Amino acid sequence: MGALLQEDEESPLIAVNEAGRSPYVLICEHASRLMPRKLGTLGLSEADLQRHIAWDIGAEKVARLLSRLIDAPLLLQRYSRLAYDCNRPPESADAIPELSETTVIPGNRKLSADDRLARAREIYRPFHDGISLQLDKRAAAGVRSLVVSIHSFTKIYKDKPRSVELGILHDRDASLSSRLIKSFPNVDARLNEPYGPKDGVLHSLNMHGFSRGLQHAMLEIRNDLIDTERGQDEWAQRLSVPLIQAAAK
Amino acid sequence: MGALLQEDEESPLIAVNEAGRSPYVLICEHASRLMPRKLGTLGLSEADLQRHIAWDIGAEKVARLLSRLIDAPLLLQRYSRLAYDCNRPPESADAIPELSETTVIPGNRKLSADDRLARAREIYRPFHDGISLQLDKRAAAGVRSLVVSIHSFTKIYKDKPRSVELGILHDRDASLSSRLIKSFPNVDARLNEPYGPKDGVLHSLNMHGFSRGLQHAMLEIRNDLIDTERGQDEWAQRLSVPLIQAAAK
Repeated sequence: MGALLQEDEESPLIAVNEAGRSPYVLICEHASRLMPRKLGTLGLSEADLQRHIAWDIGAEKVARLLSRLIDAPLLLQRYSRLAYDCNRPPESADAIPELSETTVIPGNRKLSADDRLARAREIYRPFHDGISLQLDKRAAAGVRSLVVSIHSFTKIYKDKPRSVELGILHDRDASLSSRLIKSFPNVDARLNEPYGPKDGVLHSLNMHGFSRGLQHAMLEIRNDLIDTERGQDEWAQRLSVPLIQAAAK
Repeated sequence: MGALLQEDEESPLIAVNEAGRSPYVLICEHASRLMPRKLGTLGLSEADLQRHIAWDIGAEKVARLLSRLIDAPLLLQRYSRLAYDCNRPPESADAIPELSETTVIPGNRKLSADDRLARAREIYRPFHDGISLQLDKRAAAGVRSLVVSIHSFTKIYKDKPRSVELGILHDRDASLSSRLIKSFPNVDARLNEPYGPKDGVLHSLNMHGFSRGLQHAMLEIRNDLIDTERGQDEWAQRLSVPLIQAAAK
């Protein structure tokens, strides 16, 4: 039994289609709103725990459908980002947020160093170790990898509406993003919107993509477009061919 | 027993002064020329196994002295970089080099995917996991970290002499390097010489520094200057005060 997860609670890493033959490795840090039992509700209402602050609405479903469509391995994270945001390093105040958008998270306040370390060791590390191992295995076998993370964002943020539908995010290496952006003529797709590298959201991709010399991109879909099965299917389809084509270059 | 290291062979990670109170965390990927027993001599002569192609001559001693002088944690890697170069990702041809400078490494040729994965899993990963854990613990405790790696380079490379004495290397985040470079008035110190980010040598620092938002720099000392105890002591002293001063900013 760890300091956070109990014996009957599962690893944060969910690996899907590990033998997939696509050059892409898909990751989804904010797939789920499951909370480690020890954290209870973090002092939040059930309504808050269902909002985008707890997870990326629709992202898991799109990622799973896309994994099947392009035959790509997919690594999903099992727990709510309110427990630990796996797209942030332990140094970041956003890793264990005390405030998300305008909502105070009581259960994340006044944590001890041991509490913080337990969140990092039992959620953040096992998830990222799983990504590293997948990439290490592919590299050892001489298989090329591109890393793409699947996220969603809320249409209304701090009372302001967002019109962008698809954000394609990059930090220093824009190679994959700049190829992808040309492939969505009928979508409001923009580079580094509604977030960008200055918001710290390229953490996972800088770690697994940039530091290894692997091309990468972060895909952010507006969550009102993927909150139904129909929307999820539509967006998985829409992303599939551009990804396949962009990999070939 | 692993596929590479045997039960009585030690972990690649050597942790020194883990409770050190400096803001610096020192790392030394090429500290040693020890070879995992299973790899024998990799088909090389004893003379070749003592050359700079197997390790960074003098780097471990300078790093240990510096760790003591500035009270910094130090993570050293126990095995020869000819077994696995821990400053390269598994994708890199230089991770398990078939050719180093002008020397063919017979024992690194025609490796299977399993052989390559064993090198990565048993040398590269445990070393980097140790760095991650050290940084995670500090972050959880609210302790600031800057990451500095200690290396040495050969004076004559492919028959060409190098006059630079101290290389201070950076990739995208030049903040620490640009402060340090001003602190060596009596030394031939240069930024991104004799190597730079295009040579792939910023791998460890991009992984542990850049991706976490931690300032970092790679220090490369010409190895003829640190091949004696006197030189090692001189250089550890010379680096110590500039590092302390550069951390304060």
